[in-house]
Amino acid sequence: MTKQVQSEDLPTFNMIPVMDCCVIPLKDIPNRYLVQTTDFFYPSVDDPYKQGQIACANTLSDLYAMGVTGCDNMLMLLGVSLQMNLKQQDSSTIQLIKGFNDTANKAGTYVRGGQTVFNPWTLIGGVATRVCKREEIILPENAKAGDVLILTKPLGIQITTNMKKIMGNKAIWKMLSNKVTKEAVDKAIETGVRSMTRLNLDAAKLMHKYDAHAATDITGFGLMGHSQNLAVCQTEKIGIKIHTLPIIKHTLPFDKLMFYGLTKGKAKETSGGLLISINPNKAQNFIDDLKKTEGYDSWIIGEFVKGERKAQIIKDPKIVEVLYD
Amino acid sequence: MTKQVQSEDLPTFNMIPVMDCCVIPLKDIPNRYLVQTTDFFYPSVDDPYKQGQIACANTLSDLYAMGVTGCDNMLMLLGVSLQMNLKQQDSSTIQLIKGFNDTANKAGTYVRGGQTVFNPWTLIGGVATRVCKREEIILPENAKAGDVLILTKPLGIQITTNMKKIMGNKAIWKMLSNKVTKEAVDKAIETGVRSMTRLNLDAAKLMHKYDAHAATDITGFGLMGHSQNLAVCQTEKIGIKIHTLPIIKHTLPFDKLMFYGLTKGKAKETSGGLLISINPNKAQNFIDDLKKTEGYDSWIIGEFVKGERKAQIIKDPKIVEVLYD
Repeated sequence: MTKQVQSEDLPTFNMIPVMDCCVIPLKDIPNRYLVQTTDFFYPSVDDPYKQGQIACANTLSDLYAMGVTGCDNMLMLLGVSLQMNLKQQDSSTIQLIKGFNDTANKAGTYVRGGQTVFNPWTLIGGVATRVCKREEIILPENAKAGDVLILTKPLGIQITTNMKKIMGNKAIWKMLSNKVTKEAVDKAIETGVRSMTRLNLDAAKLMHKYDAHAATDITGFGLMGHSQNLAVCQTEKIGIKIHTLPIIKHTLPFDKLMFYGLTKGKAKETSGGLLISINPNKAQNFIDDLKKTEGYDSWIIGEFVKGERKAQIIKDPKIVEVLYD
Repeated sequence: MTKQVQSEDLPTFNMIPVMDCCVIPLKDIPNRYLVQTTDFFYPSVDDPYKQGQIACANTLSDLYAMGVTGCDNMLMLLGVSLQMNLKQQDSSTIQLIKGFNDTANKAGTYVRGGQTVFNPWTLIGGVATRVCKREEIILPENAKAGDVLILTKPLGIQITTNMKKIMGNKAIWKMLSNKVTKEAVDKAIETGVRSMTRLNLDAAKLMHKYDAHAATDITGFGLMGHSQNLAVCQTEKIGIKIHTLPIIKHTLPFDKLMFYGLTKGKAKETSGGLLISINPNKAQNFIDDLKKTEGYDSWIIGEFVKGERKAQIIKDPKIVEVLYD
């Protein structure tokens, strides 16, 4: 999510406090906007190819959260780790780039440019840019009281990326091993990786088809942080009430022991799902359509209600446990 | 300098092996191109405000090297150093951002978006984007045999950023102190900083006024690396012969002792000048005009000659020593 900088150049959008991309009206081209976002971070999975895929999906997700389904160009940002030897640097970097490129191509765009530095830690990220008409953009400000909120990926990503490390501690694993098996953990991790590498592109297309009113994507601030940001953007004086938490199966025992705050919506996510505000009459069609086109479940997790522009989770929310087959 | 990725989307430009920006034709808007570049690196000066200015000037320089004088948007890339305490992190980051923003505003653009991470080392950089007509872009491929090369900033930047550290070694300073005074070193450092924070914007505007045929900017690969890149881009079978080296005064004794390769054009530069290929009849007017508008000298440092697409420095080139008052 990009902090929107206020300026006199942005008369249309200067009421929106936070947006996933900046939106710049191009002065000399009628009805054309420059939509841009950047994101870079450190690897969270061991496989550099998958990490490249994740970084690309995560960067593009900011465009998708604003309904922008096309991308005219990507730049790649890369830090090669000084803690690796030359051979490791080579093989890791090649795979990072390949994963990033392949995902960009899958999204119908190309990486043409970027910057690489040496850094103590591996860095991977990108820039996504689109020049488009106003109609392609869904500003995150038009949710209505009574709208429901759809989430398109399960929560618990950060836990899945830490599971292996946590299990490495024998004392902790002793406490966990009567609740989860190693095979179950492997499936949770696999679900996490597949979730992170998934593009939010199909969901963004369906936002237009089913007339979504507002959206954001769930990343570093967790479900509650991003829900809160979405609430404060609304023109109507409405808030968010969350009643359901789709959670990657087998992450709950880890959460209970390690205090990620998963059931409070506080656990960080990476390349998470879109959180979409939509008319309740259209929500099930959206969910069915996404299942048909992409093969994945999405869930109605809450609603917009009249009141303060705040987000909250109800007491004892319904937990839906999710595993990708 | 951005490695230009070949693709079927780039029919017009796919003969140019390296460009300072990528240039993407926008499919649904006639005669409009998305021109983009990104650059990020580590601080080279102690003052975070000036470092922010340098990072911004350096990022924009890639647009200017291609004659693109406007910028529709910038994004800022920031790594906050984990080696600093909270107070240092705060004050350094605020000043980096302020320097970057002020320079963006001076260039007539705004920073609207970006990404910040914590990193072992401070990171600073940005993304510069322009949507423009073909006429705004000067592709770096149309130099003619007989063209002269103008350089708009002196060489030796890397040495000026290391001078203080070098002088800290008593044994080395003993060898240097009969050749330079501390006051002289201060002036060289000051010239380096002013040179790095200077925008190449005025020079880029004059490239259009005086019909420049090709250009690049001098950064991490040094004068020879970037000259070589410029040579290989040319449609005509021509090479570059460099006869003059404008060098920041008092850097030569450091170069001799520490082997930067300054007089071989191998020393790295940061936010260096534009290297511009121009008709010999227009060169002096360009130089006079830049002096009038910006107050700084530029120099004819070489020429394009028929032959292999290679760059070389003649034996015993003329050295011009430069200090900014």
